[in-house]
Amino acid sequence: MTLQKLINQIRKKKSFLCVGLDVDLTKVPSHLLQTEDPIFEFNKAIIDATHSFAVAYKPNTAFYEAYGVKGWQSLAKTITYINENHPDIFTIADAKRGDIGNTSAMYAKAFFNDLQFDSVTVAPYMGKDSVEPFLAFEDKITILLALTSNAGAFDFQTQMVNNEELYKKVLQTSLMWENSQNLMYVVGATKAEYLKEIRKIVPNHFLLVPGVGAQGGSLDEVCEYGLNADNGLLINSSRGIIYVSNSTDFAEKAREEAQKLQQQMEKWVR
Amino acid sequence: MTLQKLINQIRKKKSFLCVGLDVDLTKVPSHLLQTEDPIFEFNKAIIDATHSFAVAYKPNTAFYEAYGVKGWQSLAKTITYINENHPDIFTIADAKRGDIGNTSAMYAKAFFNDLQFDSVTVAPYMGKDSVEPFLAFEDKITILLALTSNAGAFDFQTQMVNNEELYKKVLQTSLMWENSQNLMYVVGATKAEYLKEIRKIVPNHFLLVPGVGAQGGSLDEVCEYGLNADNGLLINSSRGIIYVSNSTDFAEKAREEAQKLQQQMEKWVR
Repeated sequence: MTLQKLINQIRKKKSFLCVGLDVDLTKVPSHLLQTEDPIFEFNKAIIDATHSFAVAYKPNTAFYEAYGVKGWQSLAKTITYINENHPDIFTIADAKRGDIGNTSAMYAKAFFNDLQFDSVTVAPYMGKDSVEPFLAFEDKITILLALTSNAGAFDFQTQMVNNEELYKKVLQTSLMWENSQNLMYVVGATKAEYLKEIRKIVPNHFLLVPGVGAQGGSLDEVCEYGLNADNGLLINSSRGIIYVSNSTDFAEKAREEAQKLQQQMEKWVR
Repeated sequence: MTLQKLINQIRKKKSFLCVGLDVDLTKVPSHLLQTEDPIFEFNKAIIDATHSFAVAYKPNTAFYEAYGVKGWQSLAKTITYINENHPDIFTIADAKRGDIGNTSAMYAKAFFNDLQFDSVTVAPYMGKDSVEPFLAFEDKITILLALTSNAGAFDFQTQMVNNEELYKKVLQTSLMWENSQNLMYVVGATKAEYLKEIRKIVPNHFLLVPGVGAQGGSLDEVCEYGLNADNGLLINSSRGIIYVSNSTDFAEKAREEAQKLQQQMEKWVR
């Protein structure tokens, strides 16, 4: 999916909502546990219930790998289901990968070719040659961690490197990489005031913003400081949507929460 | 496996060799491609041929994920094969994971509980709460990226943060984390001169050193600057061992290369 198609979808649905599919079997409704693939059945129900209000889905690979081969199968079935039934949806493998060049190329192959995701999240610590193999896929998007939403972000990301914070150095450096127009950036919503600074460095790129809701970030603040002419935001909610109910009405409740967020976003969409 | 058992194995085998199992199907001998699980068959042959000279095996997860569900199955079979047939071998999931706390806990579950690896490599960018869920497994080892062997290491890792390089800040900070005695660190062999500095900060921890051989690092230099009283080194070779031959003699040739490295290590073992 091209960036322009994503922007069109945002305008059509009046939403830049991304739903995080972080499926923990200890939290899904018990009636699903008797099905052959509870993770997939859960995702399918959530997707069917929320896709009118969301432009993107983001499975976090950790929640699938924790269940081994079966989990990886559920991930494959989920992305195939989205691509076949909702081709207008932007898909994100939240994998936070990154390794030396030939190894990152294998990760890119895993998520872009084998699983057919539109994008993957990547960690910056190993630098240019660990990210460029992802960017080499010109019709795919690489989403680089910049400033994350957790407490540990202050351990290194906000440390001063030559008079500026490390995350700013990451943003600036990444702009010089081949195909950097295909980058997006992860920026935690719990630090909305940082968005103003970030927009000075990357005015045109999309930002993937986790941390609204369960992690405490304010949607309106994120919009105020983060929106650009293309909208330029994907705001993610995981637990705040998918775990509202753990009964048979879980999908209906998820739909209601997704709709609430879409309604809050509507006034901001450009 | 406890650290003391690993140290005992190093002394017994007079080797601190780690063999990287980075299986690329375009590089394995063609006669294996007709088997049901070529990746596993390749690994099994390499392990059977080299285990007398190696104390650790390190599959890099990228090379398995690139083949989807089947690849993850090959990874699971490989680790099970090692644990069942060579319980004296230390196993490393080279996965370079790292995410917010509850998500890192799922990754830890994937590699420590589900796959039963002894250790996993972890990226530091997201800080303390992204690493501690791994360290919470007290009988497992968490291997933190410090200074990697690729060119991109100079993009951020060697940048100055308050008058010291970022990788030193990572080392120092990580020592304050819960269960930090269970940390090892990735340090690229292509930068052997850095090992002296690194040993000032972490004199007692093990270092996992990739980049000897194919990536250009010198084994003797790494030993000179990196060894400590427990030996404290795992030196990895992947391509330099597993891809010497792509004919039916691949395992025999791998054995010869592993033996050569073991013989170079022998004089250094303490």
